[in-house]
Amino acid sequence: MAELKNDRYLRALLKQSVDRTPVWVMRQAGRYLPEYREVRQKAGDFMTLCSTPELACEVTLQPLRRYDLDAAIIFSDILTVPDAMGLGLYFVSGEGPKFKNTIQSAADIRNLTVPDMEDSLGYVMDAIRLTRREIDGKVPLIGFSGSPWTLACYMVEGGSSKDFAKVKGMMFDAPEQMHALLNVLADSVTAYLNAQINAGAQAIMLFDTWGGSLSPDNYRQFSLAYMEKIVAGLQRHADGRDVPVTLFTKGGGQWLEWMAETGVNAVGLDWTTDIANARQRVGDKVALQGNMDPCVLYASGDRVEQEVASILAAYGKGTGHVFNLGHGIHPSVDPENMRRLVDAVHQHSAQYHQD
Amino acid sequence: MAELKNDRYLRALLKQSVDRTPVWVMRQAGRYLPEYREVRQKAGDFMTLCSTPELACEVTLQPLRRYDLDAAIIFSDILTVPDAMGLGLYFVSGEGPKFKNTIQSAADIRNLTVPDMEDSLGYVMDAIRLTRREIDGKVPLIGFSGSPWTLACYMVEGGSSKDFAKVKGMMFDAPEQMHALLNVLADSVTAYLNAQINAGAQAIMLFDTWGGSLSPDNYRQFSLAYMEKIVAGLQRHADGRDVPVTLFTKGGGQWLEWMAETGVNAVGLDWTTDIANARQRVGDKVALQGNMDPCVLYASGDRVEQEVASILAAYGKGTGHVFNLGHGIHPSVDPENMRRLVDAVHQHSAQYHQD
Repeated sequence: MAELKNDRYLRALLKQSVDRTPVWVMRQAGRYLPEYREVRQKAGDFMTLCSTPELACEVTLQPLRRYDLDAAIIFSDILTVPDAMGLGLYFVSGEGPKFKNTIQSAADIRNLTVPDMEDSLGYVMDAIRLTRREIDGKVPLIGFSGSPWTLACYMVEGGSSKDFAKVKGMMFDAPEQMHALLNVLADSVTAYLNAQINAGAQAIMLFDTWGGSLSPDNYRQFSLAYMEKIVAGLQRHADGRDVPVTLFTKGGGQWLEWMAETGVNAVGLDWTTDIANARQRVGDKVALQGNMDPCVLYASGDRVEQEVASILAAYGKGTGHVFNLGHGIHPSVDPENMRRLVDAVHQHSAQYHQD
Repeated sequence: MAELKNDRYLRALLKQSVDRTPVWVMRQAGRYLPEYREVRQKAGDFMTLCSTPELACEVTLQPLRRYDLDAAIIFSDILTVPDAMGLGLYFVSGEGPKFKNTIQSAADIRNLTVPDMEDSLGYVMDAIRLTRREIDGKVPLIGFSGSPWTLACYMVEGGSSKDFAKVKGMMFDAPEQMHALLNVLADSVTAYLNAQINAGAQAIMLFDTWGGSLSPDNYRQFSLAYMEKIVAGLQRHADGRDVPVTLFTKGGGQWLEWMAETGVNAVGLDWTTDIANARQRVGDKVALQGNMDPCVLYASGDRVEQEVASILAAYGKGTGHVFNLGHGIHPSVDPENMRRLVDAVHQHSAQYHQD
């Protein structure tokens, strides 16, 4: 493997000194890029794009050709694990992900087993191996998964949901059943992320998209506990380097102290939390990732730059900050504003990393 | 007017002693009730239901006939004010509220004026007057409005939005324009709520449905500041009694201290905040409303009762708690579970109000 030329992202997560604040953006390989839309169209459907290593590698690398990003994230979906468990993931345009089979009963849950990684998810490992070769040490490659609670939401509801009636009905009425489901998911996600690390992923992100739909008690019991279990089971060292782990619960701003206690290296913030305040709350325990409102990218380039400067100033001096949006980049923003964001992070952050 | 027989709700909001914790539920007059669906069907469309005082009065009173509730809320919509400003509110089944005309430019905003209350919103005042007569002092009647930021979201987007691209684009790029819009909305909402108080509303709720989509700084500047302005302009005394005001920002759990400083009597909580912790944070400054996850109503009646007991215990001894859900009741829950909720609040709360 080529030597890593830019390790700002890994260093910031480990709270080691850096010359600039590193930046990457959730969904940086995505629909706002015309070259992505072209590949997506050729692929036909979204799952073909995810499951064809050459195509997944190509769209992973696209944003790196345009922007001075400090990390790449393997192009995939948060729901590949339940798909490998036999639920049949598919996508309906404008409606998001769906499952052909859903989890309705204790029997459905008993039938679930940890999938064989190379058999059923080998395409993800192949995409990681190929991307590591192609990326040639330019920046580190991030692997990821959805959190057990987030996977359970889609598996029980069968798709996106406004109110999570079914999955919460199960959680409130049959908590033991829900724990059984979350346990097999935690074991599967642990195996999945370790396989990604073995294939070449140099950092890990856990996306807890729906943890923020829970009450504090239920968040701890049904989402955080299983992420903690995963973190404890991960191989945290590969190729002579630490493999840092970032945990992002959308809408979890009230629970940062809890997230910081899970053993992760970093906590992701959405934009409803002030990053200066977040830094005070978590202290030296973890690094922070975030947290610009993705809608700032609908404004002018100058406004984008101003907002970047303001978030960097709020975090203040020293390492431990990975700049990102507080959620995925929206498909309809101008790619030029993404350039303004990335360049502004590097330009305005140098002053916070001087001795 | 008949003397008020049950003033638990008003007393709890004013932090005066009560014998039981009062309870009402957001959207208690709504689609989960078969008798509501019957009136709704007869009315034809939703706006006819809102704008016909006899029908609005009827559906306002329906839940009081079934349940031992401590307050009624006038049946209406949060978007009546922009409708009265000429935007043309209508409803598409399954898609929520829409406006025929939207706000796109500075010129659109300059054309907006505070509507004449009796001319354009007289139907709301008529519904309040009629309901006050019919309710015969059984429980107090709550009046309400959407917050200026929430109204602006719908007025600029033209309907519900997943990402608020347009309204946030305007906020980030043309903040003065956004402030002009929010100012005319704050003046209109102030006039609207005072008209409701004059017509007989005995308490006021401000629903800030979309304040939680903002960063902390933007929340203060673009949502909270205008709610504070409204609160300062409200007539807080009518018919020899105080008219308490409750402010509810969905997703605003990180900003309770700020909300408590606006001059309101109470702050509404969604279920992502622990009510024991919230009480510590706001101290004696305000009462608290909330905060059961509406999805608990999808579970068994026993589970509903258990959750009610747990929230009452978390709030603990003394007045200052109005039990409610953390969001509107979902249309598909079993009306029997609503009964379990209401009865459980009264049954389990007596112990917290003994000397």
